[in-house]
Amino acid sequence: MALKFRKMHGLGNDFVVLDVRDGKMNVGPDLARALADRRRGVGCDQVMVMEPPKTPGTDIFMRIYNPDGSEAGACGNGTRCVAKVLMEESGKAACVIETVSGILPANKADGGLVTVDMGAPRTAWNEIPLSEERDTLHLGIGDGDTLSDPVAINMGNPHCVFFVNNVEELSIEHLGPSVERHAMFPQRTNVEFAQVISPTKIRMRVWERGTGVTQACGSGACATAAAALRRGLIGRDVEVVLDGGSLFFHIREDDGHILMTGAATDVFAGEMAA
Amino acid sequence: MALKFRKMHGLGNDFVVLDVRDGKMNVGPDLARALADRRRGVGCDQVMVMEPPKTPGTDIFMRIYNPDGSEAGACGNGTRCVAKVLMEESGKAACVIETVSGILPANKADGGLVTVDMGAPRTAWNEIPLSEERDTLHLGIGDGDTLSDPVAINMGNPHCVFFVNNVEELSIEHLGPSVERHAMFPQRTNVEFAQVISPTKIRMRVWERGTGVTQACGSGACATAAAALRRGLIGRDVEVVLDGGSLFFHIREDDGHILMTGAATDVFAGEMAA
Repeated sequence: MALKFRKMHGLGNDFVVLDVRDGKMNVGPDLARALADRRRGVGCDQVMVMEPPKTPGTDIFMRIYNPDGSEAGACGNGTRCVAKVLMEESGKAACVIETVSGILPANKADGGLVTVDMGAPRTAWNEIPLSEERDTLHLGIGDGDTLSDPVAINMGNPHCVFFVNNVEELSIEHLGPSVERHAMFPQRTNVEFAQVISPTKIRMRVWERGTGVTQACGSGACATAAAALRRGLIGRDVEVVLDGGSLFFHIREDDGHILMTGAATDVFAGEMAA
Repeated sequence: MALKFRKMHGLGNDFVVLDVRDGKMNVGPDLARALADRRRGVGCDQVMVMEPPKTPGTDIFMRIYNPDGSEAGACGNGTRCVAKVLMEESGKAACVIETVSGILPANKADGGLVTVDMGAPRTAWNEIPLSEERDTLHLGIGDGDTLSDPVAINMGNPHCVFFVNNVEELSIEHLGPSVERHAMFPQRTNVEFAQVISPTKIRMRVWERGTGVTQACGSGACATAAAALRRGLIGRDVEVVLDGGSLFFHIREDDGHILMTGAATDVFAGEMAA
């Protein structure tokens, strides 16, 4: 039997998208690892698996595998890619994707972009989680120099957002690891370095937990937008400029949900003997 | 128009194989760079392009692009992959591939492996090239410790082969760069670290010029087999065990040609909008 897939990316964060809704194939950690291998497989940051829907009102259940075969709870860039596939298939302008972390509505946006409702951030200290009770809006850790007093926020995974004066001059590959493993974060943390350019624009670079410096982290950009709004640095609409490109955010007033809009790019369709 | 390709690898050295024999498409540096991109393209170490034959008696002309868009003179692992494609297509057990560096006959071997005639090594000091006249069989450079008196050899590209006692304990990522840029090699050099296990088996690790430590370098394994034979350390048949797997060599007595046998593995077939 042939295994068909699509290769896609969002701002350089790349995915193998598998459709197993017909029930003919099981995707487990071994297959995910093999597919994610960049030299002997297809190669990707995550494998996105489209499974039959589990909950009424949703279009699919989406499972996310990391290259090591473990399951991820969330992936904003990958969710846009899968939403694009679903909306192309249905011809509709909206879809609803369920993951282990919750239900994510998505819809078409202008310019071929895709919007995903990433839900509301969690801000209580034990939801981050932190190792002790602290004000998550003024965490009070840092190096006393360029890094001080970050915001802690959870977008399905923990984030620590530092606001800095000049993000381009920071050596984030050296700063990231020590914050990731700071004793304040018992599950470690993603680390964002954000420079507010204007009330509608932030330049941000990211150190991803367990991965290192990446071109784009969707949940990290969400966390940065939410942290900046909490600090009163921006309004409810903001562009976050990552190394891989821009993501556009609207933070809804009534329920605090973060609507993330960005590219979902098709690269190629593939087929391998399975 | 859709661009069709195959993704293949030899011992983890991976390739996008394009067939442009119908003359409908031109592959240049820009397309090669885009295809080789591991996140926004297909991703590979080299792009192998199958062009119409130029010389009577050959089946194709094969052009080899590096990820930066430059052309490579030779690629042993990629040549096996393209030979496999040609022999599957023709149903024959042999084929002849022309490259900018010369004509490479290939044939099927036992166990689904492929044999390529890599030609004879060049051993004169100005063919390596070296920066001054030296005995290439006893080059006399080294660190006076683990690395001493290597063999210099050219397999379409320059190689510097050190014989060592225990290759596993060497920090080749630190040793490789200084040898690559040693003043003796005006065009820099690939660096091989080889441990002779028996007269029929060598364990080898490689630092590739301009790339660094890789899992497998076909021309480096050829150079190592040829250097070991010149030193009288092995016979005319030898297995070279690389990080990515084994290559098997026969060095022909009459003309000194090196016949390299190894795997050529299909991964998937792809199609992208072009």
